[in-house]
Formats: sequence, structure tokens, C-alpha cells
Amino acid sequence: MPRAYFEDYEVGERRTTPGRTITEADIGAFAGLTGDWHPLHTDTTYAEESSYGQRIAHGMLVLSIGSALVTRLGQYEAMPQSFIAFYGMEEVKFLAPVFIGDTIHLETEISALEPKDEARGIVESQNFILNQDDDVVCTYITKILCGRQPS
Amino acid sequence: MPRAYFEDYEVGERRTTPGRTITEADIGAFAGLTGDWHPLHTDTTYAEESSYGQRIAHGMLVLSIGSALVTRLGQYEAMPQSFIAFYGMEEVKFLAPVFIGDTIHLETEISALEPKDEARGIVESQNFILNQDDDVVCTYITKILCGRQPS
Amino acid sequence: MPRAYFEDYEVGERRTTPGRTITEADIGAFAGLTGDWHPLHTDTTYAEESSYGQRIAHGMLVLSIGSALVTRLGQYEAMPQSFIAFYGMEEVKFLAPVFIGDTIHLETEISALEPKDEARGIVESQNFILNQDDDVVCTYITKILCGRQPS
Amino acid sequence: MPRAYFEDYEVGERRTTPGRTITEADIGAFAGLTGDWHPLHTDTTYAEESSYGQRIAHGMLVLSIGSALVTRLGQYEAMPQSFIAFYGMEEVKFLAPVFIGDTIHLETEISALEPKDEARGIVESQNFILNQDDDVVCTYITKILCGRQPS
Amino acid sequence: MPRAYFEDYEVGERRTTPGRTITEADIGAFAGLTGDWHPLHTDTTYAEESSYGQRIAHGMLVLSIGSALVTRLGQYEAMPQSFIAFYGMEEVKFLAPVFIGDTIHLETEISALEPKDEARGIVESQNFILNQDDDVVCTYITKILCGRQPS
Amino acid sequence: MPRAYFEDYEVGERRTTPGRTITEADIGAFAGLTGDWHPLHTDTTYAEESSYGQRIAHGMLVLSIGSALVTRLGQYEAMPQSFIAFYGMEEVKFLAPVFIGDTIHLETEISALEPKDEARGIVESQNFILNQDDDVVCTYITKILCGRQPS
Repeated sequence: MPRAYFEDYEVGERRTTPGRTITEADIGAFAGLTGDWHPLHTDTTYAEESSYGQRIAHGMLVLSIGSALVTRLGQYEAMPQSFIAFYGMEEVKFLAPVFIGDTIHLETEISALEPKDEARGIVESQNFILNQDDDVVCTYITKILCGRQPS
Repeated sequence: MPRAYFEDYEVGERRTTPGRTITEADIGAFAGLTGDWHPLHTDTTYAEESSYGQRIAHGMLVLSIGSALVTRLGQYEAMPQSFIAFYGMEEVKFLAPVFIGDTIHLETEISALEPKDEARGIVESQNFILNQDDDVVCTYITKILCGRQPS
Repeated sequence: MPRAYFEDYEVGERRTTPGRTITEADIGAFAGLTGDWHPLHTDTTYAEESSYGQRIAHGMLVLSIGSALVTRLGQYEAMPQSFIAFYGMEEVKFLAPVFIGDTIHLETEISALEPKDEARGIVESQNFILNQDDDVVCTYITKILCGRQPS
Repeated sequence: MPRAYFEDYEVGERRTTPGRTITEADIGAFAGLTGDWHPLHTDTTYAEESSYGQRIAHGMLVLSIGSALVTRLGQYEAMPQSFIAFYGMEEVKFLAPVFIGDTIHLETEISALEPKDEARGIVESQNFILNQDDDVVCTYITKILCGRQPS
Repeated sequence: MPRAYFEDYEVGERRTTPGRTITEADIGAFAGLTGDWHPLHTDTTYAEESSYGQRIAHGMLVLSIGSALVTRLGQYEAMPQSFIAFYGMEEVKFLAPVFIGDTIHLETEISALEPKDEARGIVESQNFILNQDDDVVCTYITKILCGRQPS
Repeated sequence: MPRAYFEDYEVGERRTTPGRTITEADIGAFAGLTGDWHPLHTDTTYAEESSYGQRIAHGMLVLSIGSALVTRLGQYEAMPQSFIAFYGMEEVKFLAPVFIGDTIHLETEISALEPKDEARGIVESQNFILNQDDDVVCTYITKILCGRQPS
């Protein structure tokens, strides 16, 4: 059911997205887009000698793809129709490496609803990015600003 | 001067990166890579009627490119040779929109140095992404884990 | 409402997707991915002297992006959970050019429901890709194969 | 021999293009460009449990790359110098899956030549996309509009 | 006419390719692929204050796209069927800047034919990349190794 | 130490960059960007029957990525602050193939310093691109034009 307003959310609601396999090409594309070519992501020789034993995805790539997976639930499931701005993130933690070929998905739970003023409110979610073995690889809190239902 | 260890940082050091212009193609590439096609980023008709009056860059794109700009200072300026992991981020705030054609750069300051154990330490930085008018568009705190100088 | 089976569709249902602006970068990316660099798409000098007066998007790009816009309604709105295969297309017609900066969206209507056997059925849709002025730029019929509701 | 006009084609002429291997990166790029991230294409875990047992290329990707392969024969072999518009496609059929690593090529045969008016004509081709085992994976009919030889 | 062997070339033959407009997205893609984000290519603020007054394409991008334009003449026009290796380049000169929106094409002339042994020969070309005003922006000599006609 | 002027270089200085693994996606991206889809790079069936036994990277891709690796040493290590133009390359030689999965790095040595006039000078480097086995895969000479130290 599409969400229009701040009032259409409820604390405790949990949603699970489809998964996505992180490929070598994703890592190259992110390195290219951002300019972060650290050899842990892009040099097999270097990565094999690191403590991970292989190349790993950039933390920011995992966070970028993982957080966007919510859009796969449908545009108005991801963002209410009255979406105003992506407000910020808190407590971003990278808990486990994501390797090439791992498949991540997002579980997101509405953790707080804070009215900002009469017209707008902040929807806070606690988010968990998990891999194919259900290991939590990243957690973070997001806040979006959206409109309130006209009374 | 390339940095090897935790001990090579000092609280208060500030570095400024070169700038990068955010293009329409960057927004399309990020939408493509992550799957976030919200019309505020990718539909001119929609965006023109929004409060921004035009398309804006994804917050996560600004954060991904902005935070990677530190690598432009040279690999070991961005990450010490003993880099172990990107630990996490705190207090990510999106303070102003980034429009197509805006040029962002990063100013980063070492804000805390926390030894974790005898072998490893956490380097905390307070980061400011600014546009061509020196407006702060995003701030965040990063923590990386790196090795300590063998005694 | 997510669709699971063939039986969850009804002839005449119509859905409208969000829009997407076709950029110069989209045309370059499609030329690159497919290898079709016809100068009508990629050479401003040539295109300015053509009957269109400017570069136009590849028909197949309009069809590829336009037909995929249905996924923006949410994964199970685009394809039922029991999706088996994209069966084919009929009567693909390119009716008007799409220029750089045009914003297209898709209107799709269930036009026929054909049971194939006891376990599977074909969902046929009549599709209309429209630009920002509501000109129809492309029409086509799609057929997908999906599972039938177990009785 | 470069083709200029409608009159330079003959019904029954058959041409075979070079081949191209479909990579995991191609699938990711097409998903990114179009927004179609269906897990059959982009989630190994999901795809392994599907009837295909692995990820498959999007039908539209096969069609887009396959149909563009004709440009590899040279620009004026693909499209006559007097090319006006890509008119449409008929009877697009996806007959077999294309897996990562499969190599496709196109065989195209002029199937009809229809004068439209004194200045323009429609060249119809029957097209066959084949994989490395010469299985036909996709067939379709294309129609292009081009100029007629001035008399 | 497709070329098979070393013997199918003649000194003095000249070919002209179709053109291609260099876009902002091309420059971003090349910066991303190679990692060369020099601000003269990617920072409008910096570039406006440079002697060029605006961003310019990377020399290597002009050379990479320009030299590949020969493939637009058809695969066996670009490389003979007996192609063995791209041998090298000499005297690569960047003579004028290429700006966003400029349209380049290649003129290539067979400048020398050097048999290497009984089975192989080197085809040398003098190449000129020109912009829409017919200014020469880059010149270079290429050498490819290919097979000789079996006697 | 960042370099500002022509005078900050010394003949004989040698620098070694970090490495980068050449992926299948890199080859596809370069083929896409430039339009060079020669089957030796993009068709496994064809490449397996060639003398290389597998796909190889484009020479120009190796040269483009290899030469840009110098930017990984930091912007002003790659190019002096007074950089004016990339002047040209000489004696580009492709000495050994680069296969998918190979990791290349660059070793660059200042080979000549030629003052051009009172305000500008040419910095010449002899460059060696090596793979993970320290085989030299490509060599070339570059010349950049930069400013001289104001006296």
C-alpha cells in the first residue's frame, strides 16, 4: 500500500527487500564513480595478502546499494509521496566484509516518528543489511523528512 | 607525506581536497548502480515542481563522492599504509541540496585518535563537504581502523 | 497490492509509472552497451542536418527504459511472484522521436489473459510510452508467462 | 559494399555478424540503465532456485545487443546512408535463455521490401539471434524506413 | 571491401570515419575507468580559471575514441581478418584541446607496409583526429601486425 | 611531496604506483566507451581459438589505465600544480598481452627535462607498465608541459 504522509507509518513496521548480488563490476563501477580505488577493492594481488584474503566491496558501496534496495518495494513504499528530503544517517557501522558474489538484502524497521512542525515530520528507521548467510554486514539509522497529512 | 600508522596522525590536522563537478551523468550512474531512481533525481518534470525547482543529487551520491575525494590527496594520505577497515560513520547530515553542475570538495580534520588495542587504533575525522560557494552541503564523522607503529 | 499468480490480473486494469528524463548520458551508455553508435544518436553535427534537427534516443533505448519503468511500481507489481519468463513482444511501433531532456513514462493495460496449461498462463499487456507532452512515442504488446494459482 | 538506398537491398540476402559474449557486467549495466533489477537477473541466490538454475540475461538486453550487432558489419551495412527511422519490430520471441558467458551473434535476412511513397521505402528483415551452440535464442522482424534512389 | 591480409592494403589509401560528439558523460566515464580525475577535466570552477576557460577531454580519451572510430567502417575495414596484434603507436601529438560538445572523426592513411617475416607483416598508418571545424586535434602513427596471404 | 614547477623534477627519479586488476567489466566498459568491440576482446569463442587462447585487454585500455595510475600517487605527484597540457607520447609499444584478472602497475622515471621557454618546460618520462609477474606489458614515453618556477 503506497504511503503518502508521515501519518501512514507506524513504529515497529518491518519490511524486507529483494536481494542483489554484489559483482566485481559493481565494485569497479563504484571505484570509477567515486574515485576510491583502494587496492583492497581493486587489486587482487594486494587483497589476497590482506587479512580478508580477497577483494572486498567498499563500505560505502554496500551502504549505497543496501539503502537503495528499499526502492525495490515500490516507489511509494520506499519514500512517501510527500517526501521532502533525505535528512541524514546515524551510527553507520560496517560489521562484516562483503565479498564479490555475496548477495545482500535490506531489512528496515520504523524506529521513531518525530513530528517536526505542523506540516512536516521525520520518519526514523533502523536498517540492517544482511548477506546470503543472514550475517548482518552493515547497520544504520536513516531519517527522512516528509509531509504530514493535511487535517 | 605518506602516512603509515595510527601514530602518524595528529588531532586538528586539516586537509582540503581538489574539487569535482557533479554532472547529470553522475546522478544517472548512481541511480543505475544503486537502483534509486526517485524522480527528484531523475525526472525533470517532477523536480521542477518540487521545492528545489530542479533535479538534485542523491544524498548518498554526495556522501560517496565527497568522502572518496580524500583519495585524491594520494593513496596513503587518504588511508594509512596500515589501513585495516573502514569502521563506520556517525552523524551524517545532508544540509543543503547539490544541483547538477555544482562543484564539491572535502575538508577533513582529524578529530580524535582512539587506540583500540596494542596493535590497532581508530582515527576519527570530522568531515565537511562544501560546494563552489563554500556552503556546507554535508557533514559526517568517519572512523577508520589502522595499525599502530610497532614499538 | 503484490501479485502472485495469473489469476491476480484482470483485463482492463491500467497502471501508470513514474517518469524518467532521457539524458545525453543515457544515449551514450546505450550506444556503449549495445555498440549502436549511429550518428543520429551520437553526432550533433550529423543530427543537426537530419530531419530531426538534433540527436534522438535509440528506439531500443526508449523501449528498454520504457518497458522497465513498470518495475518502479514495485517488484511484484511489475512481475508476479510466480513469474517464469518474458515471453515476447508484438507490434512494437516507434511513433515519435525522443529527444535529450524528454521525460517518458509508461501506461500499461492488461489486454488479454491466456491460460497456457494447468500450471501456467500468459498475461498480455498493451503498453504506451508517452513523453512529457503526453505524445505517444512508442507502443507495444508484451507477454509474460507466469504461474497459476494452485487450486 | 555500403548501401545508400532502398533499392540497394534484395529479398533473401543474408548477413552474419561477429559474436559477443554476454558478461555479468553487461547484465548489471542493463539493469542499471533501465532499472530492471528482477532477481532472476541480479540475485544468484534467487536464480539458483529458479527453473534456470542460474542468472539469465534480460530478454531486452539480448534483443538490444543482438539487434545492434548488425552495426559491426559497418555503418552503412547496418543502416543505409539514407536511413530515416527505425520503424518498429514485430513478433519478438524469446526462445531460449542466455546465460552469463554465452556468446551471441545475429543472422539477418531481408524478408520484404515495401515502397512507402516515391521518396521512401520500408526494408523488412527477419532476424535470428543465436548462441555459441547455434541455438536460436530470439527472433524478431524489424522495419526501417529509408530513402529511395532519386530517379 | 573486407580486408583479409597484409597484401590487401596499399600505401596512400585514405579512409574517413563517421563522427562522434564528445560528451560530458564520456569524460566522466573515462575519468572513472582510468582514475584520472585531473580538475582540468572534471572541475568546472578550476577549468574556468585555466587557460582553456572550460573543461577539456583527456588526451588519452580523444586518442582512445578517435583511434577506435576506425571500427565504425566495419570490423574488417578496421582490422584485417588476419589481425594478430596492435603493435604500437608512435609520435602521438595532442595539438588542440577537445571541448565538451566537440565532434571528432578520424582520417587514416596507410603510410607504410613492412613485411616482418614470411607469415606476418606490419601495416603502418598515419592518423589524424579532427574536430567539427576540421582542426587537427591529435595525430599519431599506428602499427598493427597481421597475417600475409598464403602463397 | 607535491610538485609545483618544472624545477621540482630531477632526471632519474623513479616512482611506482599501486596496482589494479584488469577485469572483464573494464574491457566491456572500454569497448563500450570507444566502440572497439574486436572479438579478441569481447568474444570468448573467437578468442579461445586465437593464438592467445583467451580474451585480452585492448592495448589502448592498458595504456589508458596504466598511464593514469600515476594519479594514485596524489594529484600533484601525477601532475605538477603548474600543469598546462599533456603534450604527447612516443614509442608506445605493446610487448605482452594483458589477460582478464592480471594486475598491472606503472613504474615511471623522469628521463629528460627540456625547458621550452622562460615560462614553460617539458617533463619527459619513460614509463613501464608491468603485470603481477613483473613482465613489462607496455612501454611509452610521455611529455607534459608545465610552468617554470618564477624567478
